[in-house]
Amino acid sequence: MLSKNKIKLIQSLNRKKNRDETGLFLVEGNKMVEEALRSEYQVELLVCNSTFLDQNSALSGLANELIETDSESLHKASLMQNPQDALALIRQPLNSRPEFNLNHDLVLALDFIQDPGNLGTIFRIADWFGISSIICSENTVDSFNPKVVQASMGAIFRIKTWYTNLENFLMKSADNQIPVYGTFLEGDNIYNEQLTNGGILVLGNEGNGISKSVEKLVTQKLFIPTFSSGKGSESLNVAIAAAICCSEFRRR
Amino acid sequence: MLSKNKIKLIQSLNRKKNRDETGLFLVEGNKMVEEALRSEYQVELLVCNSTFLDQNSALSGLANELIETDSESLHKASLMQNPQDALALIRQPLNSRPEFNLNHDLVLALDFIQDPGNLGTIFRIADWFGISSIICSENTVDSFNPKVVQASMGAIFRIKTWYTNLENFLMKSADNQIPVYGTFLEGDNIYNEQLTNGGILVLGNEGNGISKSVEKLVTQKLFIPTFSSGKGSESLNVAIAAAICCSEFRRR
Repeated sequence: MLSKNKIKLIQSLNRKKNRDETGLFLVEGNKMVEEALRSEYQVELLVCNSTFLDQNSALSGLANELIETDSESLHKASLMQNPQDALALIRQPLNSRPEFNLNHDLVLALDFIQDPGNLGTIFRIADWFGISSIICSENTVDSFNPKVVQASMGAIFRIKTWYTNLENFLMKSADNQIPVYGTFLEGDNIYNEQLTNGGILVLGNEGNGISKSVEKLVTQKLFIPTFSSGKGSESLNVAIAAAICCSEFRRR
Repeated sequence: MLSKNKIKLIQSLNRKKNRDETGLFLVEGNKMVEEALRSEYQVELLVCNSTFLDQNSALSGLANELIETDSESLHKASLMQNPQDALALIRQPLNSRPEFNLNHDLVLALDFIQDPGNLGTIFRIADWFGISSIICSENTVDSFNPKVVQASMGAIFRIKTWYTNLENFLMKSADNQIPVYGTFLEGDNIYNEQLTNGGILVLGNEGNGISKSVEKLVTQKLFIPTFSSGKGSESLNVAIAAAICCSEFRRR
Protein backbone atom coordinates (compact mmCIF):
# COMPACT_ATOMS: atom_id res chain seq x y z
CA MET A 1 0.00 0.00 0.00
CA LEU A 2 1.04 3.53 -0.73
CA SER A 3 0.61 5.65 2.40
CA LYS A 4 -0.74 9.17 2.38
CA ASN A 5 2.64 10.40 3.56
CA LYS A 6 4.38 8.79 0.59
CA ILE A 7 1.88 10.33 -1.81
CA LYS A 8 2.50 13.68 -0.17
CA LEU A 9 6.27 13.24 -0.50
CA ILE A 10 6.00 12.26 -4.18
CA GLN A 11 3.85 15.23 -5.08
CA SER A 12 5.95 17.63 -3.02
CA LEU A 13 8.83 17.01 -5.45
CA ASN A 14 7.08 19.19 -8.00
CA ARG A 15 8.64 22.11 -6.10
CA LYS A 16 12.36 22.91 -6.15
CA LYS A 17 12.35 23.81 -2.46
CA ASN A 18 11.20 20.31 -1.56
CA ARG A 19 13.62 18.66 -3.99
CA ASP A 20 16.46 20.62 -2.41
CA GLU A 21 15.38 19.69 1.12
CA THR A 22 14.99 15.97 0.44
CA GLY A 23 17.75 15.64 -2.15
CA LEU A 24 15.30 13.62 -4.27
CA PHE A 25 13.63 13.98 -7.65
CA LEU A 26 10.70 12.27 -9.33
CA VAL A 27 10.72 10.13 -12.46
CA GLU A 28 7.54 8.81 -14.05
CA GLY A 29 6.67 6.31 -16.75
CA ASN A 30 7.85 2.76 -17.44
CA LYS A 31 10.68 3.56 -19.82
CA MET A 32 12.03 6.39 -17.69
CA VAL A 33 11.91 4.33 -14.49
CA GLU A 34 13.65 1.43 -16.25
CA GLU A 35 16.37 3.82 -17.41
CA ALA A 36 16.74 5.16 -13.87
CA LEU A 37 17.13 1.64 -12.47
CA ARG A 38 19.77 0.81 -15.11
CA SER A 39 21.65 4.07 -14.54
CA GLU A 40 24.28 5.00 -11.97
CA TYR A 41 21.64 6.95 -10.07
CA GLN A 42 20.37 5.61 -6.76
CA VAL A 43 16.65 4.74 -6.87
CA GLU A 44 15.41 5.37 -3.33
CA LEU A 45 11.82 4.35 -3.90
CA LEU A 46 10.09 2.46 -6.68
CA VAL A 47 6.29 2.58 -6.78
CA CYS A 48 4.75 0.33 -9.40
CA ASN A 49 1.90 -2.03 -10.20
CA SER A 50 2.13 -5.76 -10.90
CA THR A 51 2.41 -5.20 -14.67
CA PHE A 52 5.67 -3.34 -14.22
CA LEU A 53 6.95 -5.84 -11.65
CA ASP A 54 6.23 -8.81 -13.94
CA GLN A 55 8.16 -7.18 -16.76
CA ASN A 56 11.06 -5.93 -14.63
CA SER A 57 11.47 -8.37 -11.77
CA ALA A 58 15.30 -8.32 -11.62
CA LEU A 59 15.60 -4.61 -12.31
CA SER A 60 13.06 -3.72 -9.62
CA GLY A 61 15.30 -5.32 -7.01
CA LEU A 62 17.82 -2.52 -7.54
CA ALA A 63 15.57 0.00 -5.79
CA ASN A 64 16.26 0.69 -2.11
CA GLU A 65 12.56 0.45 -1.35
CA LEU A 66 9.81 -1.10 -3.45
CA ILE A 67 6.10 -0.51 -3.02
CA GLU A 68 3.74 -2.54 -5.16
CA THR A 69 0.41 -0.86 -5.52
CA ASP A 70 -2.60 -0.64 -7.84
CA SER A 71 -3.08 1.72 -10.75
CA GLU A 72 -5.56 3.79 -8.77
CA SER A 73 -2.95 4.66 -6.12
CA LEU A 74 -0.39 5.38 -8.84
CA HIS A 75 -2.87 7.77 -10.36
CA LYS A 76 -3.34 9.51 -7.01
CA ALA A 77 0.39 9.95 -6.50
CA SER A 78 1.31 10.90 -10.06
CA LEU A 79 1.83 14.42 -11.39
CA MET A 80 0.94 13.19 -14.89
CA GLN A 81 -2.47 13.16 -16.47
CA ASN A 82 -2.03 9.61 -17.74
CA PRO A 83 0.40 7.82 -15.44
CA GLN A 84 1.80 4.50 -16.57
CA ASP A 85 2.81 1.53 -14.39
CA ALA A 86 5.66 3.01 -12.37
CA LEU A 87 7.22 6.06 -10.78
CA ALA A 88 10.39 6.41 -8.76
CA LEU A 89 12.14 8.76 -6.37
CA ILE A 90 15.80 9.21 -7.26
CA ARG A 91 18.70 10.56 -5.23
CA GLN A 92 20.13 13.74 -6.78
CA PRO A 93 23.85 13.54 -7.50
CA LEU A 94 26.13 16.19 -6.02
CA ASN A 95 26.39 19.42 -7.96
CA SER A 96 30.05 19.11 -8.94
CA ARG A 97 32.21 19.91 -11.94
CA PRO A 98 32.01 17.00 -14.41
CA GLU A 99 35.22 15.70 -15.96
CA PHE A 100 35.92 17.05 -19.42
CA ASN A 101 38.82 18.39 -21.39
CA LEU A 102 37.78 21.44 -23.34
CA ASN A 103 40.60 20.91 -25.81
CA HIS A 104 38.67 18.04 -27.33
CA ASP A 105 35.28 17.87 -25.58
CA LEU A 106 32.39 20.12 -26.57
CA VAL A 107 30.25 21.21 -23.64
CA LEU A 108 27.07 23.27 -23.59
CA ALA A 109 26.78 26.32 -21.33
CA LEU A 110 23.21 27.42 -20.61
CA ASP A 111 22.68 31.09 -19.82
CA PHE A 112 19.33 31.42 -18.01
CA ILE A 113 17.26 28.80 -19.84
CA GLN A 114 13.84 29.16 -18.24
CA ASP A 115 11.51 26.67 -19.90
CA PRO A 116 11.64 23.11 -18.51
CA GLY A 117 10.59 21.63 -21.87
CA ASN A 118 13.49 23.42 -23.58
CA LEU A 119 16.00 22.19 -21.01
CA GLY A 120 14.77 18.59 -21.29
CA THR A 121 14.95 18.78 -25.08
CA ILE A 122 18.49 20.19 -24.87
CA PHE A 123 19.48 17.18 -22.73
CA ARG A 124 18.09 14.87 -25.42
CA ILE A 125 19.96 16.73 -28.17
CA ALA A 126 23.23 16.68 -26.20
CA ASP A 127 22.82 12.96 -25.65
CA TRP A 128 22.27 12.33 -29.37
CA PHE A 129 25.32 14.34 -30.34
CA GLY A 130 27.62 12.78 -27.76
CA ILE A 131 27.91 15.84 -25.53
CA SER A 132 28.24 14.53 -21.98
CA SER A 133 28.45 17.69 -19.88
CA ILE A 134 26.20 20.73 -19.55
CA ILE A 135 27.11 23.79 -17.49
CA CYS A 136 24.11 25.78 -16.26
CA SER A 137 24.01 29.33 -14.99
CA GLU A 138 22.57 29.46 -11.49
CA ASN A 139 19.34 31.03 -12.80
CA THR A 140 18.72 28.24 -15.32
CA VAL A 141 15.65 26.11 -14.52
CA ASP A 142 16.38 23.17 -12.19
CA SER A 143 17.34 20.06 -14.16
CA PHE A 144 15.42 17.89 -11.67
CA ASN A 145 12.14 19.69 -12.35
CA PRO A 146 9.71 16.86 -13.31
CA LYS A 147 8.98 18.52 -16.68
CA VAL A 148 12.69 18.67 -17.52
CA VAL A 149 13.14 15.03 -16.53
CA GLN A 150 10.20 13.88 -18.67
CA ALA A 151 11.19 15.96 -21.70
CA SER A 152 14.73 14.58 -21.53
CA MET A 153 13.38 11.09 -22.33
CA GLY A 154 16.05 9.53 -20.12
CA ALA A 155 18.97 11.67 -21.30
CA ILE A 156 19.06 13.21 -17.81
CA PHE A 157 20.64 9.96 -16.60
CA ARG A 158 23.46 10.14 -19.11
CA ILE A 159 24.42 13.83 -19.07
CA LYS A 160 26.43 15.39 -16.26
CA THR A 161 25.06 18.76 -15.21
CA TRP A 162 26.76 21.45 -13.18
CA TYR A 163 25.10 24.62 -11.87
CA THR A 164 27.69 27.31 -11.34
CA ASN A 165 28.53 30.96 -11.92
CA LEU A 166 28.72 30.98 -15.71
CA GLU A 167 30.82 34.14 -16.00
CA ASN A 168 33.49 32.71 -13.68
CA PHE A 169 33.53 29.42 -15.57
CA LEU A 170 33.88 31.18 -18.92
CA MET A 171 36.56 33.52 -17.63
CA LYS A 172 38.71 30.60 -16.58
CA SER A 173 38.18 29.01 -19.97
CA ALA A 174 39.21 32.23 -21.68
CA ASP A 175 42.44 32.18 -19.66
CA ASN A 176 43.10 28.76 -21.17
CA GLN A 177 42.41 29.91 -24.75
CA ILE A 178 39.31 27.69 -25.02
CA PRO A 179 36.95 28.82 -27.81
CA VAL A 180 33.57 30.02 -26.56
CA TYR A 181 30.82 29.95 -29.22
CA GLY A 182 27.41 31.58 -29.11
CA THR A 183 24.71 32.50 -31.64
CA PHE A 184 23.97 36.16 -32.33
CA LEU A 185 22.12 37.96 -35.12
CA GLU A 186 25.37 39.68 -36.07
CA GLY A 187 27.43 36.45 -35.91
CA ASP A 188 29.30 34.70 -38.71
CA ASN A 189 27.45 32.21 -40.92
CA ILE A 190 27.83 28.92 -39.01
CA TYR A 191 27.89 26.95 -42.28
CA ASN A 192 31.13 28.64 -43.33
CA GLU A 193 33.02 28.52 -40.04
CA GLN A 194 35.73 26.10 -39.04
CA LEU A 195 34.35 24.71 -35.79
CA THR A 196 36.66 23.05 -33.28
CA ASN A 197 36.08 19.63 -31.74
CA GLY A 198 36.37 20.98 -28.23
CA GLY A 199 35.12 24.16 -26.65
CA ILE A 200 32.02 25.71 -25.18
CA LEU A 201 28.74 26.44 -26.94
CA VAL A 202 26.66 29.01 -25.04
CA LEU A 203 22.86 28.93 -25.39
CA GLY A 204 20.92 31.97 -24.24
CA ASN A 205 17.62 32.81 -22.61
CA GLU A 206 14.38 32.23 -24.57
CA GLY A 207 13.34 35.85 -24.63
CA ASN A 208 16.57 37.81 -24.34
CA GLY A 209 19.27 35.57 -25.77
CA ILE A 210 22.74 35.55 -24.29
CA SER A 211 23.19 38.08 -21.46
CA LYS A 212 25.55 41.05 -21.86
CA SER A 213 28.00 39.81 -19.24
CA VAL A 214 28.27 36.41 -20.94
CA GLU A 215 28.38 37.91 -24.44
CA LYS A 216 31.67 39.63 -23.53
CA LEU A 217 33.21 36.23 -22.93
CA VAL A 218 32.11 34.71 -26.25
CA THR A 219 35.12 34.44 -28.55
CA GLN A 220 33.31 33.40 -31.72
CA LYS A 221 29.88 34.71 -32.61
CA LEU A 222 27.88 32.44 -34.90
CA PHE A 223 24.66 32.90 -36.84
CA ILE A 224 22.28 30.33 -38.31
CA PRO A 225 21.29 31.94 -41.64
CA THR A 226 17.64 32.39 -42.43
CA PHE A 227 16.34 31.53 -45.89
CA SER A 228 13.07 33.33 -45.43
CA SER A 229 12.21 35.88 -48.09
CA GLY A 230 10.81 39.08 -46.68
CA LYS A 231 9.33 39.20 -43.20
CA GLY A 232 10.10 35.85 -41.67
CA SER A 233 10.52 34.63 -38.12
CA GLU A 234 12.87 36.72 -36.04
CA SER A 235 14.38 33.86 -34.15
CA LEU A 236 14.52 30.14 -33.65
CA ASN A 237 13.53 28.41 -30.42
CA VAL A 238 16.64 27.86 -28.27
CA ALA A 239 16.41 24.06 -28.46
CA ILE A 240 16.08 24.23 -32.25
CA ALA A 241 19.13 26.50 -32.47
CA ALA A 242 21.00 24.13 -30.15
CA ALA A 243 20.18 21.17 -32.41
CA ILE A 244 21.37 22.92 -35.56
CA CYS A 245 24.58 24.11 -33.87
CA CYS A 246 25.36 20.66 -32.41
CA SER A 247 24.76 19.10 -35.82
CA GLU A 248 27.19 21.60 -37.37
CA PHE A 249 29.84 20.88 -34.75
CA ARG A 250 29.57 17.12 -35.29
CA ARG A 251 29.18 16.82 -39.07
CA ARG A 252 32.40 16.58 -41.10
CA MET B 1 -17.63 46.02 -23.01
CA LEU B 2 -17.03 42.39 -23.76
CA SER B 3 -20.33 40.50 -23.58
CA LYS B 4 -20.72 37.08 -22.01
CA ASN B 5 -21.58 35.71 -25.43
CA LYS B 6 -18.35 37.02 -26.90
CA ILE B 7 -16.33 35.50 -24.05
CA LYS B 8 -18.13 32.21 -24.65
CA LEU B 9 -17.35 32.37 -28.38
CA ILE B 10 -13.67 33.14 -27.74
CA GLN B 11 -13.24 30.28 -25.32
CA SER B 12 -15.20 27.86 -27.48
CA LEU B 13 -12.42 28.13 -30.09
CA ASN B 14 -10.24 25.93 -27.93
CA ARG B 15 -12.15 23.03 -29.52
CA LYS B 16 -11.74 21.98 -33.15
CA LYS B 17 -15.47 21.30 -33.51
CA ASN B 18 -16.23 24.93 -32.70
CA ARG B 19 -13.44 26.25 -34.90
CA ASP B 20 -14.84 24.20 -37.79
CA GLU B 21 -18.39 25.41 -37.19
CA THR B 22 -17.50 29.10 -36.95
CA GLY B 23 -14.59 29.09 -39.41
CA LEU B 24 -12.62 31.13 -36.86
CA PHE B 25 -9.51 30.69 -34.77
CA LEU B 26 -8.04 32.49 -31.78
CA VAL B 27 -4.79 34.41 -31.57
CA GLU B 28 -3.47 35.85 -28.31
CA GLY B 29 -0.71 38.24 -27.29
CA ASN B 30 0.34 41.65 -28.59
CA LYS B 31 2.97 40.49 -31.07
CA MET B 32 0.80 37.72 -32.50
CA VAL B 33 -2.24 39.98 -32.87
CA GLU B 34 -0.10 42.64 -34.57
CA GLU B 35 1.21 40.00 -36.99
CA ALA B 36 -2.36 38.86 -37.68
CA LEU B 37 -3.44 42.43 -38.45
CA ARG B 38 -0.47 42.90 -40.79
CA SER B 39 -1.05 39.55 -42.54
CA GLU B 40 -3.38 38.60 -45.38
CA TYR B 41 -5.70 36.97 -42.86
CA GLN B 42 -9.02 38.59 -42.07
CA VAL B 43 -9.28 39.71 -38.44
CA GLU B 44 -12.99 39.41 -37.59
CA LEU B 45 -12.75 40.63 -34.02
CA LEU B 46 -10.04 42.44 -32.09
CA VAL B 47 -10.39 42.60 -28.32
CA CYS B 48 -7.81 44.79 -26.62
CA ASN B 49 -7.17 47.28 -23.85
CA SER B 50 -6.20 50.92 -24.22
CA THR B 51 -2.47 50.15 -24.02
CA PHE B 52 -2.68 48.08 -27.21
CA LEU B 53 -4.92 50.64 -28.92
CA ASP B 54 -2.53 53.49 -28.12
CA GLN B 55 0.39 51.58 -29.60
CA ASN B 56 -1.48 50.26 -32.65
CA SER B 57 -4.11 52.81 -33.55
CA ALA B 58 -3.81 52.52 -37.35
CA LEU B 59 -3.34 48.77 -37.34
CA SER B 60 -6.37 48.21 -35.09
CA GLY B 61 -8.59 49.80 -37.70
CA LEU B 62 -7.98 46.82 -39.97
CA ALA B 63 -10.14 44.58 -37.79
CA ASN B 64 -13.77 44.08 -38.86
CA GLU B 65 -14.92 44.61 -35.29
CA LEU B 66 -13.03 46.22 -32.43
CA ILE B 67 -13.91 45.92 -28.76
CA GLU B 68 -11.92 47.96 -26.30
CA THR B 69 -12.06 46.51 -22.83
CA ASP B 70 -10.11 46.35 -19.58
CA SER B 71 -7.43 43.85 -18.61
CA GLU B 72 -9.84 42.08 -16.27
CA SER B 73 -12.23 41.22 -19.10
CA LEU B 74 -9.30 40.15 -21.27
CA HIS B 75 -8.24 37.84 -18.50
CA LYS B 76 -11.72 36.36 -18.32
CA ALA B 77 -11.84 35.69 -22.04
CA SER B 78 -8.28 34.45 -22.47
CA LEU B 79 -7.16 30.83 -22.62
CA MET B 80 -3.71 31.88 -21.40
CA GLN B 81 -2.52 32.09 -17.83
CA ASN B 82 -0.97 35.50 -18.34
CA PRO B 83 -2.86 37.25 -21.12
CA GLN B 84 -1.35 40.40 -22.60
CA ASP B 85 -3.18 43.41 -24.04
CA ALA B 86 -4.95 41.85 -27.02
CA LEU B 87 -6.56 38.81 -28.55
CA ALA B 88 -8.23 38.36 -31.91
CA LEU B 89 -10.56 36.05 -33.78
CA ILE B 90 -9.29 35.30 -37.27
CA ARG B 91 -11.08 33.88 -40.30
CA GLN B 92 -9.60 30.52 -41.34
CA PRO B 93 -8.43 30.41 -44.96
CA LEU B 94 -9.84 27.72 -47.23
CA ASN B 95 -8.14 24.36 -47.05
CA SER B 96 -6.72 24.35 -50.57
CA ARG B 97 -3.56 23.20 -52.32
CA PRO B 98 -0.93 25.95 -52.03
CA GLU B 99 1.06 26.92 -55.10
CA PHE B 100 4.47 25.31 -55.31
CA ASN B 101 6.67 23.66 -57.86
CA LEU B 102 8.29 20.58 -56.41
CA ASN B 103 11.08 20.73 -58.95
CA HIS B 104 12.58 23.63 -57.04
CA ASP B 105 10.47 24.15 -53.89
CA LEU B 106 10.98 22.06 -50.78
CA VAL B 107 7.73 21.30 -48.94
CA LEU B 108 7.18 19.48 -45.65
CA ALA B 109 4.69 16.61 -45.43
CA LEU B 110 3.50 15.81 -41.91
CA ASP B 111 2.39 12.25 -41.25
CA PHE B 112 0.19 12.27 -38.11
CA ILE B 113 1.97 14.90 -36.02
CA GLN B 114 -0.04 14.88 -32.79
CA ASP B 115 1.52 17.41 -30.47
CA PRO B 116 0.41 21.05 -30.96
CA GLY B 117 3.73 22.37 -29.64
CA ASN B 118 5.62 20.31 -32.19
CA LEU B 119 3.44 21.50 -35.06
CA GLY B 120 3.83 25.14 -34.02
CA THR B 121 7.60 24.71 -33.74
CA ILE B 122 7.71 23.07 -37.19
CA PHE B 123 5.90 26.13 -38.62
CA ARG B 124 8.56 28.36 -37.07
CA ILE B 125 11.39 26.21 -38.48
CA ALA B 126 9.81 26.15 -41.94
CA ASP B 127 9.46 29.92 -41.85
CA TRP B 128 13.13 30.35 -40.90
CA PHE B 129 14.30 28.08 -43.69
CA GLY B 130 12.12 29.63 -46.36
CA ILE B 131 9.72 26.71 -46.73
CA SER B 132 6.36 28.20 -47.55
CA SER B 133 4.06 25.17 -47.81
CA ILE B 134 3.25 22.34 -45.42
CA ILE B 135 1.10 19.36 -46.38
CA CYS B 136 -0.61 17.66 -43.42
CA SER B 137 -2.14 14.20 -43.25
CA GLU B 138 -5.77 14.39 -42.23
CA ASN B 139 -4.95 12.98 -38.77
CA THR B 140 -2.33 15.65 -38.04
CA VAL B 141 -3.32 18.03 -35.23
CA ASP B 142 -5.32 21.05 -36.41
CA SER B 143 -3.04 23.95 -37.31
CA PHE B 144 -5.59 26.41 -35.85
CA ASN B 145 -5.39 24.80 -32.41
CA PRO B 146 -4.51 27.73 -30.07
CA LYS B 147 -1.40 25.93 -28.83
CA VAL B 148 -0.15 25.47 -32.40
CA VAL B 149 -0.83 29.12 -33.20
CA GLN B 150 1.04 30.34 -30.11
CA ALA B 151 4.02 27.99 -30.59
CA SER B 152 4.35 29.14 -34.22
CA MET B 153 5.23 32.66 -33.00
CA GLY B 154 3.47 34.15 -35.99
CA ALA B 155 4.82 31.75 -38.61
CA ILE B 156 1.25 30.43 -39.01
CA PHE B 157 0.46 33.64 -40.93
CA ARG B 158 3.26 33.12 -43.42
CA ILE B 159 3.08 29.37 -44.15
CA LYS B 160 0.41 27.83 -46.37
CA THR B 161 -1.03 24.65 -44.94
CA TRP B 162 -3.05 21.97 -46.68
CA TYR B 163 -4.77 19.03 -44.99
CA THR B 164 -5.17 16.19 -47.45
CA ASN B 165 -4.77 12.47 -47.98
CA LEU B 166 -1.00 12.19 -47.73
CA GLU B 167 -0.70 8.88 -49.58
CA ASN B 168 -2.58 10.26 -52.58
CA PHE B 169 -0.48 13.41 -52.62
CA LEU B 170 2.76 11.43 -52.46
CA MET B 171 1.62 8.97 -55.12
CA LYS B 172 1.02 11.80 -57.56
CA SER B 173 4.45 13.22 -56.74
CA ALA B 174 6.03 9.83 -57.35
CA ASP B 175 4.40 9.76 -60.80
CA ASN B 176 6.20 13.04 -61.49
CA GLN B 177 9.60 11.73 -60.29
CA ILE B 178 9.66 14.12 -57.34
CA PRO B 179 12.08 13.01 -54.60
CA VAL B 180 10.37 12.11 -51.32
CA TYR B 181 12.71 12.20 -48.30
CA GLY B 182 12.10 10.83 -44.82
CA THR B 183 14.24 9.96 -41.79
CA PHE B 184 14.59 6.32 -40.74
CA LEU B 185 17.00 4.49 -38.45
CA GLU B 186 18.19 2.49 -41.46
CA GLY B 187 18.48 5.56 -43.72
CA ASP B 188 21.60 6.99 -45.36
CA ASN B 189 23.75 9.47 -43.41
CA ILE B 190 22.14 12.83 -44.24
CA TYR B 191 25.53 14.58 -44.03
CA ASN B 192 26.81 12.61 -47.02
CA GLU B 193 23.78 12.81 -49.28
CA GLN B 194 23.28 15.08 -52.24
CA LEU B 195 19.99 16.77 -51.35
CA THR B 196 17.90 18.42 -54.03
CA ASN B 197 16.53 21.98 -53.85
CA GLY B 198 13.00 20.81 -54.48
CA GLY B 199 11.05 17.83 -53.22
CA ILE B 200 9.15 16.60 -50.23
CA LEU B 201 10.46 16.00 -46.72
CA VAL B 202 8.17 13.70 -44.71
CA LEU B 203 8.09 14.02 -40.92
CA GLY B 204 6.50 11.20 -38.94
CA ASN B 205 4.47 10.71 -35.80
CA GLU B 206 6.09 11.41 -32.41
CA GLY B 207 5.78 7.85 -31.14
CA ASN B 208 5.72 5.71 -34.24
CA GLY B 209 7.59 7.64 -36.89
CA ILE B 210 6.51 7.50 -40.52
CA SER B 211 3.58 5.14 -41.12
CA LYS B 212 4.03 2.01 -43.23
CA SER B 213 1.79 3.23 -46.05
CA VAL B 214 3.74 6.49 -46.32
CA GLU B 215 7.13 4.77 -45.93
CA LYS B 216 6.47 2.88 -49.18
CA LEU B 217 6.28 6.20 -51.00
CA VAL B 218 9.56 7.57 -49.63
CA THR B 219 12.19 7.48 -52.35
CA GLN B 220 15.22 8.44 -50.25
CA LYS B 221 15.63 7.32 -46.65
CA LEU B 222 17.84 9.58 -44.56
CA PHE B 223 19.37 9.22 -41.10
CA ILE B 224 20.74 11.86 -38.72
CA PRO B 225 23.81 10.13 -37.26
CA THR B 226 24.14 9.88 -33.50
CA PHE B 227 27.50 10.61 -31.87
CA SER B 228 26.55 9.07 -28.56
CA SER B 229 28.92 6.45 -27.25
CA GLY B 230 27.13 3.46 -25.80
CA LYS B 231 23.50 3.65 -24.75
CA GLY B 232 22.30 7.02 -25.90
CA SER B 233 18.92 8.42 -26.83
CA GLU B 234 16.98 6.31 -29.26
CA SER B 235 15.48 9.17 -31.17
CA LEU B 236 15.25 12.90 -31.59
CA ASN B 237 12.07 14.88 -31.10
CA VAL B 238 10.32 15.35 -34.48
CA ALA B 239 10.74 19.14 -34.46
CA ILE B 240 14.45 18.76 -33.68
CA ALA B 241 14.85 16.28 -36.53
CA ALA B 242 12.93 18.64 -38.81
CA ALA B 243 15.29 21.50 -37.92
CA ILE B 244 18.42 19.49 -38.63
CA CYS B 245 17.02 18.18 -41.92
CA CYS B 246 15.91 21.64 -43.08
CA SER B 247 19.34 23.02 -42.18
CA GLU B 248 20.97 20.27 -44.26
CA PHE B 249 18.71 20.97 -47.24
CA ARG B 250 19.49 24.68 -47.13
CA ARG B 251 23.21 24.79 -46.31
CA ARG B 252 25.58 24.68 -49.30
